[in-house]
Amino acid sequence: MISKEQIQDQALVLFSKYGLKSVNMDDLAKELSVSKKTLYQVYSSKEDLVLSLFEKISSSWDEQVDEILESLENPMQKFLRFTLLRYQFVKRLNPSFLLRSGKQYEKVYSYMMNITWNMEQIIVGILHQAKEEHQLRSDVNVEVFFNVHELIFNAYFEQYNPVVPGSRETFKHMIIAPIAGICEKEEFDIWTEFDSLILSYN
Amino acid sequence: MISKEQIQDQALVLFSKYGLKSVNMDDLAKELSVSKKTLYQVYSSKEDLVLSLFEKISSSWDEQVDEILESLENPMQKFLRFTLLRYQFVKRLNPSFLLRSGKQYEKVYSYMMNITWNMEQIIVGILHQAKEEHQLRSDVNVEVFFNVHELIFNAYFEQYNPVVPGSRETFKHMIIAPIAGICEKEEFDIWTEFDSLILSYN
Repeated sequence: MISKEQIQDQALVLFSKYGLKSVNMDDLAKELSVSKKTLYQVYSSKEDLVLSLFEKISSSWDEQVDEILESLENPMQKFLRFTLLRYQFVKRLNPSFLLRSGKQYEKVYSYMMNITWNMEQIIVGILHQAKEEHQLRSDVNVEVFFNVHELIFNAYFEQYNPVVPGSRETFKHMIIAPIAGICEKEEFDIWTEFDSLILSYN
Repeated sequence: MISKEQIQDQALVLFSKYGLKSVNMDDLAKELSVSKKTLYQVYSSKEDLVLSLFEKISSSWDEQVDEILESLENPMQKFLRFTLLRYQFVKRLNPSFLLRSGKQYEKVYSYMMNITWNMEQIIVGILHQAKEEHQLRSDVNVEVFFNVHELIFNAYFEQYNPVVPGSRETFKHMIIAPIAGICEKEEFDIWTEFDSLILSYN
């Protein structure tokens, strides 16, 4: 008997590689070497499967966010870990698969909006705290910085396919450098932190 | 008698405000309170006028670039001044007017390509020199950084209309912060340089 996890893992691989539209339940059954009937006994439709995927992604995201918030005190360490978590998600999931799923299924869209909204609240709060603790330069405008960070992150997300070699180098210069630029190095040495963390985010 | 400069200045104001397409020679004559005939005696066509504008913009750009290269030794000071020069041009000229003109007139396109190509050569050279002189962190990849810088600069250029209030604040967080992030602060304190320079770039 095939497990839900096996189906989900294979589905994610196929969707991320070929996109939401190009992959149907037939392709998936073939790839898993099971009959279509077996597959439909576990997931009654493609929508059902996609929703289960996003439920899984969304709860895995929440868990990792909680882990960061609970295990760390230092606000800029939290922010850096958040940023790397997003990088990891971008590397694992194909951005156009995410966008397409959000457009196709209202429930997926609401998962994504929920994640985005929560993240925004958390990050802006962390950055304000970092500024109060003098980890950030006193002339930093947290809201402006956050908007710019999101804009650049989305540009990275949309323009750099995760499989392009060197995308970690680009991430470093595109996403980490602007954060480094607003830090007070004496209070938070982001490059040292980054170099030690990045190895575990592949 | 009306001078070429008066016509050019007024044309630039109108084109930047309303766009290339929306402004014709009639509008310009009316705005300058001269007859259409008088205007056509100076510029025989709209194309003629637009080309003269870009010739002027292009030679003013070259002059200011030469001034920077000749008056400064410090590579990161040069790079910062270049960046501010571009910011000034973006603030003065409407980006969509630039893009539209480049699409409409081949000669304008070639002016713009020429400026872009020259600038790329100069900036990459300066950044390499800065790295050799330890103004930049040793792990900076100059080519990757330059590409990211261009991508972000273009996003700023396209998304932030110069007349939006706070665009200087955005420029600081979006364009200067990433440069600050790759500098060795002990060798080049970009924020101090920036704060003293920005006042003269309005």
